[in-house]
Amino acid sequence: MKALILGSTGYTGMMLMRILSSHPQIDQIIPTSRSVAGQSVIAEDPGLHASIVEKLAGTDGCYVEFGEVDLGSVDVVFSALPHKTAASMIGPIVGTVPVIDLSADFRLVDREVYERVYGTTHPHPELLEKSVYGLSEWNRDEIRTASIIACPGCYPTATLLPLLPFAHLIDYPVIVDALSGISGAGRKEERNLLFNERSENMNAYNPGRVHRHVPEIVQELRRAVSAGSSAGSSAGTPADILFTPHLVPIKQGMLVTATARLTSPMSQEEAEAIVTDAYASSPFVNLTTRSTPQSRDVRNTNRCDLSVRVHGDHIQLFSALDNLYKGASGQAIQNMNIRLGLDERSGLRLSGEF
Amino acid sequence: MKALILGSTGYTGMMLMRILSSHPQIDQIIPTSRSVAGQSVIAEDPGLHASIVEKLAGTDGCYVEFGEVDLGSVDVVFSALPHKTAASMIGPIVGTVPVIDLSADFRLVDREVYERVYGTTHPHPELLEKSVYGLSEWNRDEIRTASIIACPGCYPTATLLPLLPFAHLIDYPVIVDALSGISGAGRKEERNLLFNERSENMNAYNPGRVHRHVPEIVQELRRAVSAGSSAGSSAGTPADILFTPHLVPIKQGMLVTATARLTSPMSQEEAEAIVTDAYASSPFVNLTTRSTPQSRDVRNTNRCDLSVRVHGDHIQLFSALDNLYKGASGQAIQNMNIRLGLDERSGLRLSGEF
Amino acid sequence: MKALILGSTGYTGMMLMRILSSHPQIDQIIPTSRSVAGQSVIAEDPGLHASIVEKLAGTDGCYVEFGEVDLGSVDVVFSALPHKTAASMIGPIVGTVPVIDLSADFRLVDREVYERVYGTTHPHPELLEKSVYGLSEWNRDEIRTASIIACPGCYPTATLLPLLPFAHLIDYPVIVDALSGISGAGRKEERNLLFNERSENMNAYNPGRVHRHVPEIVQELRRAVSAGSSAGSSAGTPADILFTPHLVPIKQGMLVTATARLTSPMSQEEAEAIVTDAYASSPFVNLTTRSTPQSRDVRNTNRCDLSVRVHGDHIQLFSALDNLYKGASGQAIQNMNIRLGLDERSGLRLSGEF
Amino acid sequence: MKALILGSTGYTGMMLMRILSSHPQIDQIIPTSRSVAGQSVIAEDPGLHASIVEKLAGTDGCYVEFGEVDLGSVDVVFSALPHKTAASMIGPIVGTVPVIDLSADFRLVDREVYERVYGTTHPHPELLEKSVYGLSEWNRDEIRTASIIACPGCYPTATLLPLLPFAHLIDYPVIVDALSGISGAGRKEERNLLFNERSENMNAYNPGRVHRHVPEIVQELRRAVSAGSSAGSSAGTPADILFTPHLVPIKQGMLVTATARLTSPMSQEEAEAIVTDAYASSPFVNLTTRSTPQSRDVRNTNRCDLSVRVHGDHIQLFSALDNLYKGASGQAIQNMNIRLGLDERSGLRLSGEF
Repeated sequence: MKALILGSTGYTGMMLMRILSSHPQIDQIIPTSRSVAGQSVIAEDPGLHASIVEKLAGTDGCYVEFGEVDLGSVDVVFSALPHKTAASMIGPIVGTVPVIDLSADFRLVDREVYERVYGTTHPHPELLEKSVYGLSEWNRDEIRTASIIACPGCYPTATLLPLLPFAHLIDYPVIVDALSGISGAGRKEERNLLFNERSENMNAYNPGRVHRHVPEIVQELRRAVSAGSSAGSSAGTPADILFTPHLVPIKQGMLVTATARLTSPMSQEEAEAIVTDAYASSPFVNLTTRSTPQSRDVRNTNRCDLSVRVHGDHIQLFSALDNLYKGASGQAIQNMNIRLGLDERSGLRLSGEF
Repeated sequence: MKALILGSTGYTGMMLMRILSSHPQIDQIIPTSRSVAGQSVIAEDPGLHASIVEKLAGTDGCYVEFGEVDLGSVDVVFSALPHKTAASMIGPIVGTVPVIDLSADFRLVDREVYERVYGTTHPHPELLEKSVYGLSEWNRDEIRTASIIACPGCYPTATLLPLLPFAHLIDYPVIVDALSGISGAGRKEERNLLFNERSENMNAYNPGRVHRHVPEIVQELRRAVSAGSSAGSSAGTPADILFTPHLVPIKQGMLVTATARLTSPMSQEEAEAIVTDAYASSPFVNLTTRSTPQSRDVRNTNRCDLSVRVHGDHIQLFSALDNLYKGASGQAIQNMNIRLGLDERSGLRLSGEF
Repeated sequence: MKALILGSTGYTGMMLMRILSSHPQIDQIIPTSRSVAGQSVIAEDPGLHASIVEKLAGTDGCYVEFGEVDLGSVDVVFSALPHKTAASMIGPIVGTVPVIDLSADFRLVDREVYERVYGTTHPHPELLEKSVYGLSEWNRDEIRTASIIACPGCYPTATLLPLLPFAHLIDYPVIVDALSGISGAGRKEERNLLFNERSENMNAYNPGRVHRHVPEIVQELRRAVSAGSSAGSSAGTPADILFTPHLVPIKQGMLVTATARLTSPMSQEEAEAIVTDAYASSPFVNLTTRSTPQSRDVRNTNRCDLSVRVHGDHIQLFSALDNLYKGASGQAIQNMNIRLGLDERSGLRLSGEF
Repeated sequence: MKALILGSTGYTGMMLMRILSSHPQIDQIIPTSRSVAGQSVIAEDPGLHASIVEKLAGTDGCYVEFGEVDLGSVDVVFSALPHKTAASMIGPIVGTVPVIDLSADFRLVDREVYERVYGTTHPHPELLEKSVYGLSEWNRDEIRTASIIACPGCYPTATLLPLLPFAHLIDYPVIVDALSGISGAGRKEERNLLFNERSENMNAYNPGRVHRHVPEIVQELRRAVSAGSSAGSSAGTPADILFTPHLVPIKQGMLVTATARLTSPMSQEEAEAIVTDAYASSPFVNLTTRSTPQSRDVRNTNRCDLSVRVHGDHIQLFSALDNLYKGASGQAIQNMNIRLGLDERSGLRLSGEF
């Protein structure tokens, strides 16, 4: 099978290259890039091994311009472009080839919310209703036939996986404090991302309801609350969230600590059973054997490790994942596996670091 | 003046040595240690500059046994010993010389709480009522005449400084997520503290109400709630807290994010004024000019930077400090300054890193 | 095929577990351990994914005692034990099953050198002559039939791979400065390896000729000098080295910078051709496309990236590898692949980080 | 006394601000900046404590334009500008006020060397002969009356302090491998300096004779060789160096390992005595009590810790310093202290971290 990547030189594009280069069912990769078209992939990204050229036969080992690619033989397109650019590039090809988008462009159902949050008009609003939200564990059936799969951001993935099984069992707002590695901010040459500004440093930012990922999290929580019970927890503002991201000096890693009041009593065993049941057939999501998850356990894997703790009338949920892997490119490949009828685990790493 | 240190070779002892070595009113330091008595201070801690020997004249530049010291000429005793050992060593000298203790032994008013939390009997329970809680900004008057000053731990300092001004204005439990640098765990040779286990790694631990510092935080919050208003927020469990510490790969630094529901509406301006008023005469505690505090700003200083954010009916409070400085040895010296009638700022650093 | 691991809970044992768990030709792993026999592998090392239990069928997912294993069905034994313990445990089984040892016990040909360097008698000196030095790229033929393969340490691997092709073309001593990640020192609970002592810190140690790996490096350089030319560079002390290791705050990574005077003039092109020729059929060793290698390019891979620079009558050689992978467990598996007649690359990672 | 800073917002300017803010003889600081003139110092650099405004009375707590400053009352000018810009700005005021320059513009005696290395014409070549090389320990007498003091770069300071006492006792080329923290590269928004590109990564760069600091090191070595003995080591190319810098994931720190052949035999004791004698009256440079220096010992101090090791006919020299402190701003203040007749140690930190 043949996979094309739009935007191959950012961190998520580079991670896609790594996973696809050792994916057993992918024979050919077409890395496109506007900025470095015509240049050698290995020279641009020396972490890739020279043997990747076997899968780059169609491009002579070089990045190519998207416009020069014959899409006819391509089995799947990944977009690792920034938002808006993604929708503009993807729009014309939707329907002709399965598209897996890592940007924010097709995550939000409501065009107005998108345009307010991202401060721009949507280039292809007509595609919003065709898009499937690519949180793999919760939307497998729809992903199997989707024309566009909108992969969630890293914060929503790390927040929703622990919260969704409890969405209809808790009061709102949930208090979510998230810790992110620096690569979550992308490969931008910004002062705030320099080694000297981040090592031995940490801070919260955009607290409360202002982070761009909040509407996406709230949208999915509400969907789950509606689905979760006929009654719903419809009183008050449903599925509200106070979300505070923190930057910590780690390259790849994300941790979520979510705290909420339970709507009715629950034992520690019941809480654990809810998690276990929800992810019984999901190889990448599991209760950790630790009391709380550690980010190194899942570094460079597609896993999300969870734990849960009941404190009287409150519940705390913990998750850890790699923001570039399960939080981005790994989940994108997981969605490809589902979409193309492959084993969901194919080509994806399971064991993390120590 | 002459200062004696009990337990000079842990991180807080080593930090006391650094601050006292350049403190303008301290002429002599007596570093005691059981494990390295008789050995050269400079050889044991090469980060200290050779010029410290001028202040070590009484000990020939070496650590000494506590039992061999003539306390008659000592103006202040610092204890950086572990809990229980601290009380055993300090007990006999209380009343003869001002004692500043960095352990947990004299922080809790209630002996039963202490014995439950620390799993041991208290060697000198009769001293508990004599002890003053050394959160400098809130107990200056009592510190001025105290015979024992019990310095708060780093988590309580970082949690109470932002919360106390609002203690009577919020519902409980407050949700507190704290991020700590690794030095908060001390200089123990434990696997969990190895570089390889902590770099590129993070995790929550002891979540909810089980961390040893929770009773200390709750004790002080309750005191503030009682004092804060005649009515108090007496409904339900007063001054309860859900406290979740997290370990992040930083050496020195601590961040607190606290979230609570307001008992009555408050504007952003009102919230900021409450902080500003509370710390108007406190040189080390200030609203940061940033939207949220960064830990590097206060690294190696005695500062605690704060910020506050009102989100509808909720409030979020943020703080940053250096767990070994304002969270331990710096605040101990601040208390010494107050106790000995010196300028509160004497010898303490104000400007952090960049 | 079935692989047994002696000493499964140190860093090299844990890395063996990771590589073998996804190795396509290994069906069963038998992890032995004295300290945690009977305990669950997943609980002890949560970074491993639960799916590893499929390969642990023979042990019920637990570590086992070595003495309880039936070696009859085992195809290969890895020893990740400390020196001396390794030889004692391995000695009795040599000849019955191929043994791949990661300790120092079978690296040195000369028993007296071993006993002087390691300050102990050798438990099985009769096996020294049977052992093959497991620097895969230079000893493939002997490895194919070896009963014991003594895998080199990380420093010797990183030093010898760039130096060996030039061993007969340079004057001695070579000046070698090596930078090592902290995991090179193992999983010991030592103060010097704590996060707080290593972050924002670096230092040289054991400079000159006193590091334990120097005799191993010199032994192999001399072998190469003898083999390299009939004349040899026999003047003075042949194949001498001044070797200075440095600790830097990295978990996994090693860098070598080696400088020597050339015995006769050489152009930059000639020098590069020597490297290219030496490793033409070695998939894991290559000239990097960068001017000098970076350690992240090879992190978590079995690669060693090289570069070379001629400065007038001097030459500089640069290498980068992952001390736990190509410098230890990865090379051990590479040797297993060669020994068992598998594809040399089987199960080993090629693409590093970015 | 009143100090003016040109270029206040780079790392060296920010470090100057920190040191001067607590310097006992400096009453007023005038921070100039083209990019943020008119903006609040505290808002721009929140690590500085609000109390610095007491020393910023003349500027209302803000950065000012250099052109608007009345130089009449200024006692000393620091320039932390980039090269060429520095010379252009400083040129017109030399002779009217002592100038301490941290750029490369006045370090090289030979204009042609400067213009070749920096690829630009020198704006004020007539000032080169007036300039004094600001390696404090070696040029105190000239610094006392200098109109321009050209502070050395961090690599030259860390290399020359250990080498100069031995300059006439060794063969050349000396092999120098240097390890630098990332802040040595300045506060530039470059991809290569991002946290994600530097953490868990290291590499050599510009090896041999191409780094810009090599001519400066060679110039000073040659001066020392000429001065060191009437005969000199005049054979071959005198005072040549093979210098290889390495980037390691540390913010502030520098380590040098230098290896050379001795021209005549020397004992370990003699070598140590040479160091001790050379720096007997230099408070910031000392033999460390460790076997080799560690960078954390000198972090945030003006120290350079040294050690020496004789290996037969070779000698190795080791040094550690903080590239932003003794390697830049600290040494600049040390030079100010000397130039203005103050205690050389005034305002400079001596004790490092642990």
